Amino acid sequence: MEKLWVIGIGAGDPDQVTVQAIKAMNQVDVFVVIGKGAEKQELVDLRTAILAEHVERPYRVVEVADPPRERRPDDYGSTVDDWHDRRAEVLGRVFDDITGTAGILVWGDPSLYDSTLRIVERVREKAQFDYEVVPGITSIQALAARHRIVLNRIGEPVRITTGRRLHDETVTNAVVMLDGDCAFTEVPGDDVDIWWGAYLGMPDEVLVSGSLRDVEGDIQQVRSELRDRKGWIMDTYLLRRR
Amino acid sequence: MEKLWVIGIGAGDPDQVTVQAIKAMNQVDVFVVIGKGAEKQELVDLRTAILAEHVERPYRVVEVADPPRERRPDDYGSTVDDWHDRRAEVLGRVFDDITGTAGILVWGDPSLYDSTLRIVERVREKAQFDYEVVPGITSIQALAARHRIVLNRIGEPVRITTGRRLHDETVTNAVVMLDGDCAFTEVPGDDVDIWWGAYLGMPDEVLVSGSLRDVEGDIQQVRSELRDRKGWIMDTYLLRRR
Repeated sequence: MEKLWVIGIGAGDPDQVTVQAIKAMNQVDVFVVIGKGAEKQELVDLRTAILAEHVERPYRVVEVADPPRERRPDDYGSTVDDWHDRRAEVLGRVFDDITGTAGILVWGDPSLYDSTLRIVERVREKAQFDYEVVPGITSIQALAARHRIVLNRIGEPVRITTGRRLHDETVTNAVVMLDGDCAFTEVPGDDVDIWWGAYLGMPDEVLVSGSLRDVEGDIQQVRSELRDRKGWIMDTYLLRRR
Repeated sequence: MEKLWVIGIGAGDPDQVTVQAIKAMNQVDVFVVIGKGAEKQELVDLRTAILAEHVERPYRVVEVADPPRERRPDDYGSTVDDWHDRRAEVLGRVFDDITGTAGILVWGDPSLYDSTLRIVERVREKAQFDYEVVPGITSIQALAARHRIVLNRIGEPVRITTGRRLHDETVTNAVVMLDGDCAFTEVPGDDVDIWWGAYLGMPDEVLVSGSLRDVEGDIQQVRSELRDRKGWIMDTYLLRRR
């Protein structure tokens, strides 16, 4: 393998791909898809459509089966760590068989809550190859654009965190990703606003915003209905204390 | 004015524009440039080049002079607030004269440390028009891509803040923007790493990374030399405690 491109392809809207990502995709001989089996068919189809729309040369797609992962571990960090080691081993073997340029497409941006770069670095401990990263639009940015909001008030910091960690710190401007448990319902106070979005940039996009206490029940209900109907959900939100 | 597009055009690399931004630019009759007088000629040229490369229909560019702004106010928030009010007044008069579709191009993403949406909302208190926001790649994402790093370690939060506010909170993963005073030199401890970048995505891009205590002097020196030579600097960095 001569080179690897790790390419951010945005949050879901095929138009939110950058010119840089399109140019990179057009240099790739083999696209490596990690853990395709676990991925929802709708996302697989969306990625296939992005490739078909933007790539104008022949390419192959190689799928890498994902090693099994414990879903509710006691020690979250170290379990994920072990799992990444096993993924790196499998990925290293796939890279060994590739001639030319490889590409991995990442939803959103490879720099945020994505394990691809971490796994690639582990493969590189044992194998040498050049690689380059192309940033993509995250669901945070898609959320802010659709609600037409600025994440920070003047001069304020913004915290990006997970549902799991939302309780640890106070809310000023908190962007929450990876929240399967509606952790926002446990944020105290009557002075918090929420801007929530699901399937951002996709045809099924849903937006809800308002005072947290007023809309938290609606969001829980909409979220649950959508997940039941489609079989999966991707959502993110901004919380801000007034 | 029928409609306003607020369009994120990325951190500086013309290839980091999205397909969505290109499509939006091609619907605009009049591009409104706020405060062009204060902007560095190199950035003005870069924006002109982005328009020339991607827009295939005739358009006009209208410049809006910026009201003067106090540079080192005691009460930062309220002074910026007043200034935004005066900008909104000026912008509202410009919008009144526009027939068709207007566009405002924003470096990076309109959702982060940018005042455009805030000012547009103030104009909308007195005038009605439809508007839409297109997200763009931020300098944070360009920084992470060029250093090939993930902003968070597994499951950890990321704080985005300004140099002014960096002292207020402890560092886990802190992304710092708008730091004219090298606030990183005042972060205590021998266990902090930094990933720094200036002019990200532009021909003059410079990257430095390493242990903060080892490279902070180099970054200060490089930063000062670059600013002297070019007359301006745009930089951002990630700090992380080991």
